[in-house]
Amino acid sequence: MADSRAIGVFDSGLGGLTVMREIAHRLPKEDIVYFGDTGRVPYGNRGKEIIRKYAVDDEKFLLQHNVKLIVAACGTVSSVAADTGYALPVPFFEMITHAAREAVRVTRNHKIGVIGTAATVGSGSHKQAIAALDPTAQVTACACPMFVPIVEEGWVDAGDELVNAVVARYVDPIIRAGCDTLILGCTHYPLLRHAIRAVVGEITLIDPGVAVAAAIQDYLSATGLFNADGGGQQRFFVTDKTQSFQKTASILLGKPMDETCVELVELEGL
Amino acid sequence: MADSRAIGVFDSGLGGLTVMREIAHRLPKEDIVYFGDTGRVPYGNRGKEIIRKYAVDDEKFLLQHNVKLIVAACGTVSSVAADTGYALPVPFFEMITHAAREAVRVTRNHKIGVIGTAATVGSGSHKQAIAALDPTAQVTACACPMFVPIVEEGWVDAGDELVNAVVARYVDPIIRAGCDTLILGCTHYPLLRHAIRAVVGEITLIDPGVAVAAAIQDYLSATGLFNADGGGQQRFFVTDKTQSFQKTASILLGKPMDETCVELVELEGL
Repeated sequence: MADSRAIGVFDSGLGGLTVMREIAHRLPKEDIVYFGDTGRVPYGNRGKEIIRKYAVDDEKFLLQHNVKLIVAACGTVSSVAADTGYALPVPFFEMITHAAREAVRVTRNHKIGVIGTAATVGSGSHKQAIAALDPTAQVTACACPMFVPIVEEGWVDAGDELVNAVVARYVDPIIRAGCDTLILGCTHYPLLRHAIRAVVGEITLIDPGVAVAAAIQDYLSATGLFNADGGGQQRFFVTDKTQSFQKTASILLGKPMDETCVELVELEGL
Repeated sequence: MADSRAIGVFDSGLGGLTVMREIAHRLPKEDIVYFGDTGRVPYGNRGKEIIRKYAVDDEKFLLQHNVKLIVAACGTVSSVAADTGYALPVPFFEMITHAAREAVRVTRNHKIGVIGTAATVGSGSHKQAIAALDPTAQVTACACPMFVPIVEEGWVDAGDELVNAVVARYVDPIIRAGCDTLILGCTHYPLLRHAIRAVVGEITLIDPGVAVAAAIQDYLSATGLFNADGGGQQRFFVTDKTQSFQKTASILLGKPMDETCVELVELEGL
């Protein structure tokens, strides 16, 4: 048994490209359809009902592209609208559950740090997911509003004192709480991995994209629904293409994005 | 002759509160209606046609509140959709023209720096406005994407080394170009005034909000349309109220915002 349909990944913007990258790295034969709602980014500033509506729009779009499973790479959707995904007729993966599971698996002192956007941290979603798996765990969560702009500026070098100063200011409560495990709870943050490592030392860093990619592999393994002889084709759909699109996409994807694979779409009238 | 109608100020979000503050400071008897399109912020990421549509929506909203003049405090609207404002049945003030005029007035060496968002700098609007007034002027413009998040984080202290490092990295080309005048071309930037001053030394800083407030005073003076015995009432309308609303509003307004004066509105069906 095999399933040649693509894996669908969506995000409010381009951050989810880091998640797509992990999936492609682990499952190079799978085709992937990426949908980035760049015309309405960021979702984190919106009210909960609006976010749910946007999530449903995004999921509908991917279903129309005949995907075999859907990944909500968006931290905001994962935090406040995951139920819209779990109601879909295809399997659904979000960014909180698998990261929490991995953190609980690797922590030794049951002190887990979480960093994310203000919206994600404010939702308490990681805290809840961790508590459900390990009620003894102590969670220290910090919002890091400067991390997304610093990554999009391309300032991610672990040797850059300015970057280190920003990282150090934010992660200080995590270090002081004695956490031995830290969830990088926003799609952009894995790009700061080396800079964060330089500041936090021996704390184990959990990349939710890696955790989700592993979970998808497990699922495809269990069901046999791999794309047995696929070529790993990647297609990108976005709702707006700004001046900085190519720069941001390249930073997040880790290589220049082939513009011929990018299509501008309208969601209206879905 | 007098005119007791309010002054209307709009912005894509809350940044325009710094402009409102300058107007209120200079014209304390005038009533002000502030409209912040916080549900659709930021405009800078959108395509030109969408920005024009949003600008028209915002202007319509203020006209419905019977304002005597309209200020586009939004750098993006001022840069790419000012014509929608100049077509209105009331006087219109945007953030580029008056700042450019002031910069050209005070520069001695005709070397003018501009800092702003990527969208504003990319539009070239300041460069054009300055060239129209002083064709010999050399303009050095730098986008500073980290300045808005750093201000909204409340990191604006001139004694903060991290803030100074961020400022120094961005304004370096302005200093190297030998500019004697620098336009703070985004509503958030006046809050970094002291930190910028600490880095650039003797360069004259132009705050467009101050320039626009002066231009409005000149206009009211020339026409006699002051609010002769107004109480300086302030009303705020926004299209979304996020978790961080109160914090951000207080930083930009320079004092806690009275929530009883804030009304959540929908633009749909205007």
